[in-house]
Amino acid sequence: MGFRVAVAGASGYAGGELLRLLAGHPQFELAAITGHGTAGSTVAEVHPHLVTLADRVLAPTTAASLSGADLVFLALPHGQSGALAAQLPAHVKVVDLGADHRLTDPAQWAAYYGGEHAGAWTYGLPELPGQRGLISAAERVAATGCYAATIILALDPLLASGIASPDDIVVVAASGTSGAGTNAKKHLLGSEVMGDLTGYKVGAHQHVPEIKQATGARSLSMTPILAPMPRGILATVTAKPMHRVTEDEVRDVLIAAYAEEPFVFVQKKGQQPHTAATYGSNAVHLQAVVDLDSGRIIVTSALDNLGKGAAGQAVQCANLMLGLPETTGLPINGVAP
Amino acid sequence: MGFRVAVAGASGYAGGELLRLLAGHPQFELAAITGHGTAGSTVAEVHPHLVTLADRVLAPTTAASLSGADLVFLALPHGQSGALAAQLPAHVKVVDLGADHRLTDPAQWAAYYGGEHAGAWTYGLPELPGQRGLISAAERVAATGCYAATIILALDPLLASGIASPDDIVVVAASGTSGAGTNAKKHLLGSEVMGDLTGYKVGAHQHVPEIKQATGARSLSMTPILAPMPRGILATVTAKPMHRVTEDEVRDVLIAAYAEEPFVFVQKKGQQPHTAATYGSNAVHLQAVVDLDSGRIIVTSALDNLGKGAAGQAVQCANLMLGLPETTGLPINGVAP
Amino acid sequence: MGFRVAVAGASGYAGGELLRLLAGHPQFELAAITGHGTAGSTVAEVHPHLVTLADRVLAPTTAASLSGADLVFLALPHGQSGALAAQLPAHVKVVDLGADHRLTDPAQWAAYYGGEHAGAWTYGLPELPGQRGLISAAERVAATGCYAATIILALDPLLASGIASPDDIVVVAASGTSGAGTNAKKHLLGSEVMGDLTGYKVGAHQHVPEIKQATGARSLSMTPILAPMPRGILATVTAKPMHRVTEDEVRDVLIAAYAEEPFVFVQKKGQQPHTAATYGSNAVHLQAVVDLDSGRIIVTSALDNLGKGAAGQAVQCANLMLGLPETTGLPINGVAP
Amino acid sequence: MGFRVAVAGASGYAGGELLRLLAGHPQFELAAITGHGTAGSTVAEVHPHLVTLADRVLAPTTAASLSGADLVFLALPHGQSGALAAQLPAHVKVVDLGADHRLTDPAQWAAYYGGEHAGAWTYGLPELPGQRGLISAAERVAATGCYAATIILALDPLLASGIASPDDIVVVAASGTSGAGTNAKKHLLGSEVMGDLTGYKVGAHQHVPEIKQATGARSLSMTPILAPMPRGILATVTAKPMHRVTEDEVRDVLIAAYAEEPFVFVQKKGQQPHTAATYGSNAVHLQAVVDLDSGRIIVTSALDNLGKGAAGQAVQCANLMLGLPETTGLPINGVAP
Repeated sequence: MGFRVAVAGASGYAGGELLRLLAGHPQFELAAITGHGTAGSTVAEVHPHLVTLADRVLAPTTAASLSGADLVFLALPHGQSGALAAQLPAHVKVVDLGADHRLTDPAQWAAYYGGEHAGAWTYGLPELPGQRGLISAAERVAATGCYAATIILALDPLLASGIASPDDIVVVAASGTSGAGTNAKKHLLGSEVMGDLTGYKVGAHQHVPEIKQATGARSLSMTPILAPMPRGILATVTAKPMHRVTEDEVRDVLIAAYAEEPFVFVQKKGQQPHTAATYGSNAVHLQAVVDLDSGRIIVTSALDNLGKGAAGQAVQCANLMLGLPETTGLPINGVAP
Repeated sequence: MGFRVAVAGASGYAGGELLRLLAGHPQFELAAITGHGTAGSTVAEVHPHLVTLADRVLAPTTAASLSGADLVFLALPHGQSGALAAQLPAHVKVVDLGADHRLTDPAQWAAYYGGEHAGAWTYGLPELPGQRGLISAAERVAATGCYAATIILALDPLLASGIASPDDIVVVAASGTSGAGTNAKKHLLGSEVMGDLTGYKVGAHQHVPEIKQATGARSLSMTPILAPMPRGILATVTAKPMHRVTEDEVRDVLIAAYAEEPFVFVQKKGQQPHTAATYGSNAVHLQAVVDLDSGRIIVTSALDNLGKGAAGQAVQCANLMLGLPETTGLPINGVAP
Repeated sequence: MGFRVAVAGASGYAGGELLRLLAGHPQFELAAITGHGTAGSTVAEVHPHLVTLADRVLAPTTAASLSGADLVFLALPHGQSGALAAQLPAHVKVVDLGADHRLTDPAQWAAYYGGEHAGAWTYGLPELPGQRGLISAAERVAATGCYAATIILALDPLLASGIASPDDIVVVAASGTSGAGTNAKKHLLGSEVMGDLTGYKVGAHQHVPEIKQATGARSLSMTPILAPMPRGILATVTAKPMHRVTEDEVRDVLIAAYAEEPFVFVQKKGQQPHTAATYGSNAVHLQAVVDLDSGRIIVTSALDNLGKGAAGQAVQCANLMLGLPETTGLPINGVAP
Repeated sequence: MGFRVAVAGASGYAGGELLRLLAGHPQFELAAITGHGTAGSTVAEVHPHLVTLADRVLAPTTAASLSGADLVFLALPHGQSGALAAQLPAHVKVVDLGADHRLTDPAQWAAYYGGEHAGAWTYGLPELPGQRGLISAAERVAATGCYAATIILALDPLLASGIASPDDIVVVAASGTSGAGTNAKKHLLGSEVMGDLTGYKVGAHQHVPEIKQATGARSLSMTPILAPMPRGILATVTAKPMHRVTEDEVRDVLIAAYAEEPFVFVQKKGQQPHTAATYGSNAVHLQAVVDLDSGRIIVTSALDNLGKGAAGQAVQCANLMLGLPETTGLPINGVAP
């Protein structure tokens, strides 16, 4: 009864959220948890909020420590998943939260990440048409990036339905600071980020090729913003309609696309998504309007970058890969205020 | 299988957290939920984070709408529980999150709250020695105040063990803004509270008599501070030792007091409690040190004012009153960062 | 020596910032200050940070109380400036921080604000080509809106130079909460805004016609976002280049446009503007990049919505109107962290 | 006309605030500014908010680079001022923002800081009785610590007047994160501090001996709290009255003590100090109440830890040492919201 799952990279923010979800998952038993600089530490030292796991000790991140699991989550810095995954036995299923296996085109990998391309795995966004079945059948799944999930879920129905043009999509997306990870850098200090908004990687973010690959977008300008909050992404996705459209028409496209989806919620007309409403959950909140002046379609999309944008997404994929109900162990309601 | 529970005052912050916990509780079915100004609204309009309850409609707060439940949670403004509770059938169990039935002394009620005293119910803090059994047997329970819970759990073992004096206890406790409720007042606007710390009700907070009643403290100075965060209380509780003590001796008192408690966690030596580590949970984190200069005992105590300080506490009591395992449906790990 | 200036609407956030700037202005003496609901209150009650003005009492907002000044600042809710201004003597100069007199086209006023159009005054953005002279000569000046200032200063040089197309401009701009004013509304409570990002007036913001009027933009999609901080606006302004351009070419356009401007600072290459760096100042920080995928020009623009976006802007105009050096009494360095 | 002043340690937060104040000081010309790891950087890279100094380059921190100034501010890590100060010519006046020269008792230095004691200088808190004259005559001044300033200004009048007992003083004081400096440590990341309150150095803070030395307190328990905001300290200082006192009596003691002080403001009765009201200023806001239950005197005290708690304090001392009006170049009104 149940499965044994392991977490490599358990000391990062995505790793910590994975531990939290796995600790509450009724079908998962937590096998090895590993860290790099934190190997030998207890969870109490690294994640004081995870009191039920306080005395668990982080092992070093090696294939040996992970191989006893039925499924391994890799929550490693970009570029480190490929080598480790290659050493895991074939019968061990793997969900990679990193970017290494998302892109199918080695040239795009080289352009946006650099280094050797590890090769593509099944893309782990179950809400994409046809993708759920592929994930269920896969042994290795590359979960989506946090920005990518936020933007793809807003954009894909517009392009798939033909209501919007794949050319000249413009996105601005703001993220909480946990997206920048646990590395201590001066510009991420509380003193620096509280009260501040700033752009970063403006015009050159590495999730652009991932979004284009998943949606068929042909031209995509994406500006990421660092926002003064720990979690959450709000994406403003604007696209040109193929012909003049109404707000109701665009909303209907989103509603139809996600009618059966357990984690995607199109807001009632007039309500805008709030990132705070998704905190701690695997939910995505969407809304669509049509710009009065330009006629552009504007879809706003909110999720928790550590939830549906990382750890929740990964557990959702793992549930599918192991034949469990997709929603097992995943909160849908956010924690607010 | 299961119990029907109702929530009166479901549109406040404590009410919203109750709905979130109840929606995830495996033994509770949500009967009526009521509001005052929000009667007729949907949960989607009032609590956009609670998507699984989005279409539920708030009823007016009347005894009639609540009477069909096995247990009713009252999350009403102070002074409003008494009259409503008196109208509920005797077989309906009640947990009051408000202050109306906490104090045994009408004179204290008059001094700190004013108006007529509704009479005392069983005090709903299961971790107090002997209290768990009383709660289990009670039909009506008055859950603790948020500051009171934070401070009592830090203070009671010190006084019960005789290690600290009940005279001249000094407490400063800071709370997130949700403790001030959903009433729109200028001094609670985001523009006002972000970046600000300020005292309020300094020297005259209404939880003082509650803490004294529960712990036997004889003299208690308590200063509440409003802190720029949505949730969480951190209390610094200082007391004079009866004789010179070491940090280890004080820690041992706390560890012994809470060895069997599922929700109280004495931090490892050298680690201080973080309110963020309790966010969304029913956990309390404690630590003790002895002041180098004065020799005072300093116990720091952190919890989520809407969790163990309100809604979690209330569900914990309800579990006991209904014969369920005490931890049913209650998160112990916090959501962080 | 010096001038007497009055402030109508001194109890709002823009009014408070005006008072702060005026209290430190070497050439201004503060005549009447007025409020609506706060008439009769002291500054100590309304703006506890303004200790040097603590005992000043707010008068009711009437033409009589304002008429003794050389110059009056109107910091009133939209729609209230017109009637009051009409009652002020012709020799009293007026700077309106509200929207009433910004738009030249009554149809645009009707479409975005509603009610009767009060008529257009000289537009108060000195950095617009040719505008400084008009402001210096004017008796009545309509200062720019906060979003409008942020966006116009980013956009105008692109259009004026011909490097970008006036069609299909897409803007997302996030503002701190003080932009929403001092009215106590639940969605602006600290509990609601901390940790949250959300869109509002998406696709229909009233600054759109103002920006188009000032820059000649022909199509403009603008999405405003409410950000969890008290002050600051960060605008991401994207425009299609008329032909393929480099980052250096775009930066050179901005640098040339603002070479002589005392308040506009194009960041060094590779540095992005931070709203926190403009806090409390009259500065605007700009940067330009060219999007790798789409080739769109992306200009990011940061300012303090109460500074250069409101009160600072207004004082800058007043300095010009009264023949003072433009920078008198205006901080250029921000207060950070 | 004017003096040449230099800043050693200009890349920290206190150093940055010093630069901001000095840039706006009408009598100071900025001579050398130095950094350690940042030597060779421009101010634009280190302090993007200080645009008027953007192109200034930080020199290495050596006596040679500083010796040309009339007065040098040392804003160095604790333990580094002594050696550098010893190398500066005797005619160069020095204000040390660090702790090295505050304590008169080498044993206290050893107990709380460790290492060799550099010897005591004139203590730089002009509001202490008799201290203003000493500072004016001094060549070397040790400015107060940030917590120390907040607490001493609340406590000293109580003890000096004899209204409160010097025994058993209990203080809890919460500080914004800039007090922890610019060193990038994980526990100071925005992701960690936003939404969190936690104690640190509980029961053993190094400002305790400084406060006792300045005020004559005999027993002092002080608990520091890290608060989720960039700046500001709010101290809750409680002391036992020598005999039963009223709120008015205590307030009168504070009012009398600071009647002539330009930077200390006792709030009107019923108003509590707000740290946000002191942001960016050299002001201190105080209030006193008497605790209803215990009769303890509670004085709350708010200031900007980088202003009156560090850089502002230092400039105030420098003004005195150079014979300038004490308030020259120092903001008194805060920047809010």
